[in-house]
Amino acid sequence: MKTKQVKAYGTHSPEADLKELQIERREVLNKDIEIDIMYCGVCHSDLHFARNDWGMTEYPVVPGHEIVGKVTNIGSGVSKHKVGDVVAVGCLVDSCRTCNNCKADLEQYCTNGWVGTYGGYDKHLDTNTHGGYSQTIVVDEEFVLSVPENLDFAGIAPVLCAGITTWSPLRHWNVGKDSKVAVVGLGGLGHMAIKLAHALGAHVTLFSRSENKIEDAKALGAHEVIISTDESQMEKAMGKFDVILDTVPYEHDFNPYINNLNTNGTLVVLGYLGPVAPPLVTVPMIMGRKTVAGSLIGGIAETQELLNFCGKHNIVSDIEVIKMQDINTAYERMLKSDVKYRFVIDMKSLKTS
Amino acid sequence: MKTKQVKAYGTHSPEADLKELQIERREVLNKDIEIDIMYCGVCHSDLHFARNDWGMTEYPVVPGHEIVGKVTNIGSGVSKHKVGDVVAVGCLVDSCRTCNNCKADLEQYCTNGWVGTYGGYDKHLDTNTHGGYSQTIVVDEEFVLSVPENLDFAGIAPVLCAGITTWSPLRHWNVGKDSKVAVVGLGGLGHMAIKLAHALGAHVTLFSRSENKIEDAKALGAHEVIISTDESQMEKAMGKFDVILDTVPYEHDFNPYINNLNTNGTLVVLGYLGPVAPPLVTVPMIMGRKTVAGSLIGGIAETQELLNFCGKHNIVSDIEVIKMQDINTAYERMLKSDVKYRFVIDMKSLKTS
Repeated sequence: MKTKQVKAYGTHSPEADLKELQIERREVLNKDIEIDIMYCGVCHSDLHFARNDWGMTEYPVVPGHEIVGKVTNIGSGVSKHKVGDVVAVGCLVDSCRTCNNCKADLEQYCTNGWVGTYGGYDKHLDTNTHGGYSQTIVVDEEFVLSVPENLDFAGIAPVLCAGITTWSPLRHWNVGKDSKVAVVGLGGLGHMAIKLAHALGAHVTLFSRSENKIEDAKALGAHEVIISTDESQMEKAMGKFDVILDTVPYEHDFNPYINNLNTNGTLVVLGYLGPVAPPLVTVPMIMGRKTVAGSLIGGIAETQELLNFCGKHNIVSDIEVIKMQDINTAYERMLKSDVKYRFVIDMKSLKTS
Repeated sequence: MKTKQVKAYGTHSPEADLKELQIERREVLNKDIEIDIMYCGVCHSDLHFARNDWGMTEYPVVPGHEIVGKVTNIGSGVSKHKVGDVVAVGCLVDSCRTCNNCKADLEQYCTNGWVGTYGGYDKHLDTNTHGGYSQTIVVDEEFVLSVPENLDFAGIAPVLCAGITTWSPLRHWNVGKDSKVAVVGLGGLGHMAIKLAHALGAHVTLFSRSENKIEDAKALGAHEVIISTDESQMEKAMGKFDVILDTVPYEHDFNPYINNLNTNGTLVVLGYLGPVAPPLVTVPMIMGRKTVAGSLIGGIAETQELLNFCGKHNIVSDIEVIKMQDINTAYERMLKSDVKYRFVIDMKSLKTS
């Protein structure tokens, strides 16, 4: 198979900083689209994956799955996009396309295993896939999304992961006008959740541990902020919410949020992967038909729906644009939650390095 | 308020056996129905409540919330039932009737607190309510259900609690033709869950720890039995079920059942009240948009729907009929799961004592 060498940023070991390296990209096949990457968002998963925090990384790793770029070349069978279009690629670059979930536009739950934008298996090159911290990427047209032209191309990048991760549960659990939605945690996911739920017409509340988030949350569209460490505020919120999106990525107590769900309400866990501690108590779940669920990113059609929704409502992520060369510092700042609310790499910085 | 003395069976302390005692029943008010109790099912809650296992019992307690009887007197404003009708009373005898849940036929989640058939607050007599281990009961017509005449009146009694507790989640989570349903545990609830899910057209599987349940489960309508302690059988069931009803009343591991849910599948906890141990792990929930929920009995309209469904499909509980005087022995046998699958008291035995 014909390939091209392109510049990328990645690492060969969990301990090493990310640095410039060369990777191969295939020449476009019949259904492929070659994208010149303009912006790539920086997700917490990028850091976890680069550092092998989940014990599944194969090296070298080139992170990045919030990709916005311009089409520079297309295969002869491509009909969805054309050269010059601004397009996007999110967390998935392929899936089996034949299982029931794929057929139902739920590629993110492909029962044969979807192919991640990085760290997945690249069947063309028999290696692991490489993500958006690179000059270009080649992706099958079915996994390439259209970006509304009115949007800021840097600001839209985080919508491909942080956005869709919150959009998918908002849609699945039927959030709309007058829904009572709460968001736990105000980071990359949380700030998108507030914007999107607000735009859907919901009444939006942020649960936060800190009073100094109140102003920011309201500016993003929250109608209310509840300080989760204040028992009297939490008590007043009992039985109030239809849907609570919990974006907190570390171990924490789910039970107070379950108490704050309405009958038939759902707590959707988006951020924390692991055993639940302190333990979930079933009593309020049974007494109020309350639900705890998980949700993972979103499918391709749903991501396109979100991009179109963002176009219509002029929604982008609040970001801090960095150079590719600043990625290691950005990771350190991200670990301290020192970012409002997402870093996005301006990929020109890699091209001109 | 005018009252009548009637014979009942109950206890004045957690340690004492149940014995005959006298209780008061009000004379019928405008909307009231007086019922001569023919049969009363014996629920695990009866035992827990009599022994104050939940720390909330006020004495004397007269258990029983699976009541079938004949109307002997009605208030002048009653229109739903007439003297001579065979009727039923389940777990609820009143609720606020004004909250959003009551208005939505979800009296079991009444936000102002529903009135239990026993151990609730009887606003008429300013005492606690007394249940079906008694000669008669007087209940507002809105909480009195019609019993299809083709059914065995003893066998239908457990439908009022064990039946509705499994019917409500089957209906809420849209179980129907070709749904893949599994039931964990084969007791009072489990055996009704199998019958009802089967009659709804679902493919029904029982999870059981013991091979000697296989034959019984199939006779009740299960298409398949998976031995939950057999890892290879459990592995084969991965991702298979849309809904799993977990009827087990003691602490146990939910995680294997979550693995066996399909994408969008729901594990409904019906039996176990308490902290979840071993802890729930969020990873499979997130990776497959899987859900853990609770569910409590059912509303009045839904219970009537179930009784009608049982009438149409000729479904009753499998029971062992006992005399009122045998209740203490029955409790001991129930603790050892030595009953297929529900004791029902023939209340003639109390009248003639």
